[in-house]
Amino acid sequence: MSVDVASEINLQDELIVDSEAAAALFLEARTANSWAEGEIPEETLEAVYALTRMAPTAMNIQPLRITWVRSPEARERLVAHMADGNKAKTLTAPMVAVLSYDTDWHELMPTTAPHAAGMVPTFAANDALRQGMGANNAHIQAGFFIMAARAAGLAAGPMGGFDAAGIDAEFNEGTQRKAFLVVNLGRPDGIVDRERLHRLDFDAATATV
Amino acid sequence: MSVDVASEINLQDELIVDSEAAAALFLEARTANSWAEGEIPEETLEAVYALTRMAPTAMNIQPLRITWVRSPEARERLVAHMADGNKAKTLTAPMVAVLSYDTDWHELMPTTAPHAAGMVPTFAANDALRQGMGANNAHIQAGFFIMAARAAGLAAGPMGGFDAAGIDAEFNEGTQRKAFLVVNLGRPDGIVDRERLHRLDFDAATATV
Repeated sequence: MSVDVASEINLQDELIVDSEAAAALFLEARTANSWAEGEIPEETLEAVYALTRMAPTAMNIQPLRITWVRSPEARERLVAHMADGNKAKTLTAPMVAVLSYDTDWHELMPTTAPHAAGMVPTFAANDALRQGMGANNAHIQAGFFIMAARAAGLAAGPMGGFDAAGIDAEFNEGTQRKAFLVVNLGRPDGIVDRERLHRLDFDAATATV
Repeated sequence: MSVDVASEINLQDELIVDSEAAAALFLEARTANSWAEGEIPEETLEAVYALTRMAPTAMNIQPLRITWVRSPEARERLVAHMADGNKAKTLTAPMVAVLSYDTDWHELMPTTAPHAAGMVPTFAANDALRQGMGANNAHIQAGFFIMAARAAGLAAGPMGGFDAAGIDAEFNEGTQRKAFLVVNLGRPDGIVDRERLHRLDFDAATATV
């Protein structure tokens, strides 16, 4: 299904990636609610992460943590905390990733941000600042994660409807990690269950000064 | 400069985009602090937005708003609110985008999310919920924005170091929009001013259950 993305310009003329990549990553990709059968091999998940991790973050703090929920037993524990409308698809998706952010990202700064490691005590003393920076930067990384999954041939179904405290109790206990997005993953099955929703036009969402 | 991204797998074998796209979008792209000279045409900005807007957001709320800071006068007003270390590059970048999120995203739901428009009164009554959802979803969109800029041949330099209240007073007055990221943009000049910082390994940032 084609989408009218830029009526005033020839979009492809402005891009340095080919039309297949633009389609797969941006223009034709859809949030998925069903998938082709078949397990997602470990190598594919490694590839998704290898791309995701290149995302820029403030001072390179990389707060995103990923829990791959593969076993049927763990999947049942996760589904119990999903909103009713998300339970069935989360149970049947070939793979599910719980995305969390680690509010203790400052502890890794000697490795991730040696140029800024002198600020570790400042961050250690400011829980609210670490929480905000952790959440914000992990959401930027989540944008990269969705794109990375598509680059690896997966259709992604990100969901915000779940009991985050329940998921944290199940999967993040004993850490300072907070679940913020659950993403179903699998090979596309070609089923589109509704028309794409409206996207804001250039003039509605942007302005030039 | 090549990066050891996936020592255990042949990364390209796992991808459906070609190696040029993977390099341009993820693997070889770097945060930029200097750029080739030359204006960025309007058509390129339209292309960046045409890709950015395809990002998934919760209920399709699309809270991201972009202010393209093109005029020298506006650029000076922006630079006044940037952290000292960001002033020079923000002044000289061929283009600068101020990314804000609109906490009044619920007002557009009849257009962006007609399936969920019945929830408008609920969101209208809950400023904190709108603020959180606006910030989180706009950061996911910011991840797509950085990737979209790269797809359009631009090098991006995202920055969090600025006086957000000052920028809001300059560029978001009379709205419920809040600036959260400033991104310098331009054609790459090939200058890499330092080695890429360490990225967390698969086993450090992910776990399987």
